[in-house]
Amino acid sequence: MSGLPAISDYEIVDLRFPTSDEAHGSDAMHADPDYSAAYVVLRAGGEAEGHGLTFTLGRGTDVVVASARILCDMVVGMSLEEITADFAGFWRRLTSESQLRWLGPEKGVVHLAAAAVVNALWDLWAKAEGKPVWKLLADMPAERLVSCVDFRYLTDALTPDEALRLVEQNDAGRADREAELLRDGFPAYTTSAGWLGYSDERIRSLCRAALADGWDTFKLKVGADLEDDRRRAAIIREEIGPDRRLMVDANQRWDVPEAIEWVRQLAEFDLWWVEEPTSPDDVVGHAAIARAIAPIGVATGEQCQNRVVFKQLLQQEAISFCQIDSCRLGGVNEVLAVLLLAKKFGVSVCPHAGGVGLCEYVNHLIMVDYVRIGASLENRVCEFVDHLHEHFVDPCVVRRGRYMPPTAPGYSARIKAESLAEYRYPDGPVWSERRGSRQ
Amino acid sequence: MSGLPAISDYEIVDLRFPTSDEAHGSDAMHADPDYSAAYVVLRAGGEAEGHGLTFTLGRGTDVVVASARILCDMVVGMSLEEITADFAGFWRRLTSESQLRWLGPEKGVVHLAAAAVVNALWDLWAKAEGKPVWKLLADMPAERLVSCVDFRYLTDALTPDEALRLVEQNDAGRADREAELLRDGFPAYTTSAGWLGYSDERIRSLCRAALADGWDTFKLKVGADLEDDRRRAAIIREEIGPDRRLMVDANQRWDVPEAIEWVRQLAEFDLWWVEEPTSPDDVVGHAAIARAIAPIGVATGEQCQNRVVFKQLLQQEAISFCQIDSCRLGGVNEVLAVLLLAKKFGVSVCPHAGGVGLCEYVNHLIMVDYVRIGASLENRVCEFVDHLHEHFVDPCVVRRGRYMPPTAPGYSARIKAESLAEYRYPDGPVWSERRGSRQ
Repeated sequence: MSGLPAISDYEIVDLRFPTSDEAHGSDAMHADPDYSAAYVVLRAGGEAEGHGLTFTLGRGTDVVVASARILCDMVVGMSLEEITADFAGFWRRLTSESQLRWLGPEKGVVHLAAAAVVNALWDLWAKAEGKPVWKLLADMPAERLVSCVDFRYLTDALTPDEALRLVEQNDAGRADREAELLRDGFPAYTTSAGWLGYSDERIRSLCRAALADGWDTFKLKVGADLEDDRRRAAIIREEIGPDRRLMVDANQRWDVPEAIEWVRQLAEFDLWWVEEPTSPDDVVGHAAIARAIAPIGVATGEQCQNRVVFKQLLQQEAISFCQIDSCRLGGVNEVLAVLLLAKKFGVSVCPHAGGVGLCEYVNHLIMVDYVRIGASLENRVCEFVDHLHEHFVDPCVVRRGRYMPPTAPGYSARIKAESLAEYRYPDGPVWSERRGSRQ
Repeated sequence: MSGLPAISDYEIVDLRFPTSDEAHGSDAMHADPDYSAAYVVLRAGGEAEGHGLTFTLGRGTDVVVASARILCDMVVGMSLEEITADFAGFWRRLTSESQLRWLGPEKGVVHLAAAAVVNALWDLWAKAEGKPVWKLLADMPAERLVSCVDFRYLTDALTPDEALRLVEQNDAGRADREAELLRDGFPAYTTSAGWLGYSDERIRSLCRAALADGWDTFKLKVGADLEDDRRRAAIIREEIGPDRRLMVDANQRWDVPEAIEWVRQLAEFDLWWVEEPTSPDDVVGHAAIARAIAPIGVATGEQCQNRVVFKQLLQQEAISFCQIDSCRLGGVNEVLAVLLLAKKFGVSVCPHAGGVGLCEYVNHLIMVDYVRIGASLENRVCEFVDHLHEHFVDPCVVRRGRYMPPTAPGYSARIKAESLAEYRYPDGPVWSERRGSRQ
């Protein structure tokens, strides 16, 4: 890292894949997503590049790109050494920019943009150290790891000193857990079979294919129509048998009383968790649902805007599964904050993935959690969706239902040059041809 | 309204005032705001225009403008009649656009943009009816008023039927309260004396001027330095005497334990409320602070992202004063939702104002609340800041510390043509000359 020149310039690409053509990713609230990303490249000197992205659903990606530009302007001229010497302080300046914070603060567009920039910085840092991001964090002294976290608004639940003790208490078994991950990987589950737009036949055949590939945990999208959900849940339960785990995901479709009633109507299919039963902003509502549907667990997080909302979900015992999102939280630094909070409250971290690059990112984060923070595999599974990995230079590797640790230096989000050219919006050929054919 | 043609086109202006030059609006988190707005003009036919805005702090206004453009594209081709016939349904479609909602949902940039568009629609509607917005709502049948609200995520706290009963129970005294407002206005308070960047002498002279103008409720910005806050609080208390009300506003500067301790150190100055003691996202934290500092009340809202967070603040008894923001909530429709929730929980609505156009907007909202929903003046005061009103065609009128009801048709946010031309960013002369002088 020493000697790496200051960040001199950047490029941001509005990258969109026309996934809505085939109902990939469809759910009760997002009928027609075009999986997309605001993709940031930071350049420091001749060769060094940091690649980072944040996931979006199509329209509005340009808005995130515009926000990322304001943040990248704050980064240009700084060296990686300056930034990482007080990474929490830098992170706070980036996410609390005095005029921009009115547009959040720390949520929505400006926070998604911050994630892309922060993730690019971690990629640059890890490459400078010649390690994957997970290994950079696995090897880091505990004080340094904790120093990456901005504890603002967290100290009523977790102080920096407590966080340090949580990390240090795991030091003993650290090497064994790392070796175990390198050998066996981290348990995953698949959502590929259960999208809302799929036919019954497709669900059935995808279940069989997934079972043949070694998957043992399955998730179904629900919430649009109760009878439809019961039929589809029955199909999946029939296909996977009584012993494998089945979860449902309502993508925020319900009000609190409706969620409780709907889940009761699905309980006979033996659900492990109910994901996003209501508004991602409703901590109190999630807590009420959790009390009402126990022992079925509540899971949420992919649209939890920041560490402050996760803190409250944990304080209120509103979730049994903490679904961090690598791009909704403000990059690795804030993810570390939530991993530490989840550890403090004894809740399993089961990351959200899919989209564009989220599987590539969480593959690092689950390794960090197991080696340094959560330090357990009990009740932990990480989402996997088998879409769009072919566009990545260093795609995640999943074998027999388990994520295998990345080996290449960096944070694995580099997109192939030909994919960038092809899917760039609105000028890439995939999009310009579609506009042409519509005219 | 009948016969008004469909909305045919729109214009959006990035409008910025260089207020940071004089530390107007400075506080513990926003050191150098340039009060700004994304300003929307919707056109329906030859003459009819709806003007709406959302308030911003400078950088990033372009991002809000870009989001508003996506939403305006959804509105073009629709008639006011179509929109208002099922206004809640329209509002939900606008705020739940299936690709854009990933960038919120219902928060931050995309929600601020929605506010500008929705506020412009109310302006257009009220002008078509030949009434100020507050009068349009004052005269509306109760069912129609309640039908403007999207109750998604609210029904565990408030159902449409309950809301209807809350409005109907006020019908009796409605005409009297309207007459009272037209005669006496609605009580206001001033923040103009207490900005963080002002000198002691300036605070003292502003207090005296405000007292001479009839003000009886004062607010001080705090949170940067305790000794400084104690000195400034002592100055204001000395100037205003023991009987007038004094509030402090920390603009989210503190963690929860710090907030409790800091407020105890200021308690001797006899505080009525403490505003924004911590993160606007921290419902649980606000509740803890409220329990610890009673009988001093907790106030928050200017950065509460939506009705779901207000619902929880009320459910958890976290606030004694509900500070709706006319541009952070998704326009009039969502403001009505929060007014109804506050009524249900018996909490006073004391709107946030200042910025650009917020005083003009809240002047309508407090009238609606008093005539139709809250129906009380007890413990109610509405913020007033005497900045930038000269740019409005129909500026708010405040007399002897009271807001006087607007009389012109519409929602009062129309900016003068010469101000639009002058302060348009980046090409208006105010900005192009500043760039020139820096080069």
